[in-house]
Amino acid sequence: MTATLDFWFDFASTYSYPACLRARSVAARDNVKLRYRPFLLGPGFKAQGWDTSPFNIYEAKGRYMWRDLERLCADLGLTFRQPEIFPQNSLLASRVAIAGDGEDWQEEFCRAVFHAQFGQGRRIDDPDVIDEILSRLGQPSSDIRAYAQTDAVKARLKAQTQEAGRQGIFGAPTFVTADGELFWGNDRLEAALRWAARKGK
Amino acid sequence: MTATLDFWFDFASTYSYPACLRARSVAARDNVKLRYRPFLLGPGFKAQGWDTSPFNIYEAKGRYMWRDLERLCADLGLTFRQPEIFPQNSLLASRVAIAGDGEDWQEEFCRAVFHAQFGQGRRIDDPDVIDEILSRLGQPSSDIRAYAQTDAVKARLKAQTQEAGRQGIFGAPTFVTADGELFWGNDRLEAALRWAARKGK
Repeated sequence: MTATLDFWFDFASTYSYPACLRARSVAARDNVKLRYRPFLLGPGFKAQGWDTSPFNIYEAKGRYMWRDLERLCADLGLTFRQPEIFPQNSLLASRVAIAGDGEDWQEEFCRAVFHAQFGQGRRIDDPDVIDEILSRLGQPSSDIRAYAQTDAVKARLKAQTQEAGRQGIFGAPTFVTADGELFWGNDRLEAALRWAARKGK
Repeated sequence: MTATLDFWFDFASTYSYPACLRARSVAARDNVKLRYRPFLLGPGFKAQGWDTSPFNIYEAKGRYMWRDLERLCADLGLTFRQPEIFPQNSLLASRVAIAGDGEDWQEEFCRAVFHAQFGQGRRIDDPDVIDEILSRLGQPSSDIRAYAQTDAVKARLKAQTQEAGRQGIFGAPTFVTADGELFWGNDRLEAALRWAARKGK
């Protein structure tokens, strides 16, 4: 039986960038199948009284995070460019990713969105950027984008965000194993995979 | 030239426990000399409007932290027992550690305080516990504790706490290299040592 690992992320989350870009190859090594589960951090932040990312609210922590992310990306051989706006609105990208549930292009789409944002400093709330990514993947961008904005898809993202809260997820990336074990942060990817692989046997 | 790495911690900090217990052997491998720099997280937390640890304020995050710490300790072969009170008052232990600056027993004292608290669930604000640790290290416990409570030592802890803030430290453990590079968290110990070792050459 192939073990699975749920990879919960918000496209606006900085540490989800290295996590997403390296997850595929690390998971393949452990023979674990990843399930991409985009959700929105915003509602959880609001419930804690935050109207933006804690990295903006707590200045020293935010300054550290950008430097740490830069170092991490350098170590991983990932390009890094701090976007002018942070956090970006991740609603459109998340809906498109949800529309890609079960589709071959979903994984590559997620990787490309993170790379556009944190590798190139581009806007991911810009429909042209999303269309460009989908087209590069050989997908009918306007059809997918139209579908992503239907009530059905909107409701699925909302439900997925609520599920994240119910599972005790408070940040991103978070990895959740089939037996409900939570691992928070890019730093915990390996531990999560080990746990998932052990239980999958 | 031997490279050095400043190891900033608060005795009340949970992730400083595995960091402190494993730092010595990991640093020795990289031929890096650690400088133990206890400080108080409280003043920084207060400045952000927190009257206790954020792990108590943000429930889901706190629940996760205890589980994560338990797993981490199991992986490292460290005993773990969640203390009844969290965070504990770390003032006395910090002052004694400061009194041990330049002394052979300082490192072992720090390790023992963390182990008493998070490995055995004991109180570290109890003078008897501190005395017991110092005595086990062959030190004159009442003399050291009396010295630790002098105005001179109190002032040094206060100054060190202020220095932490000036260096941009917002959490513990934090590792700072000689060239001022910050690495936050037990997870960053290896990266900090690599950085320090590279620059020390």
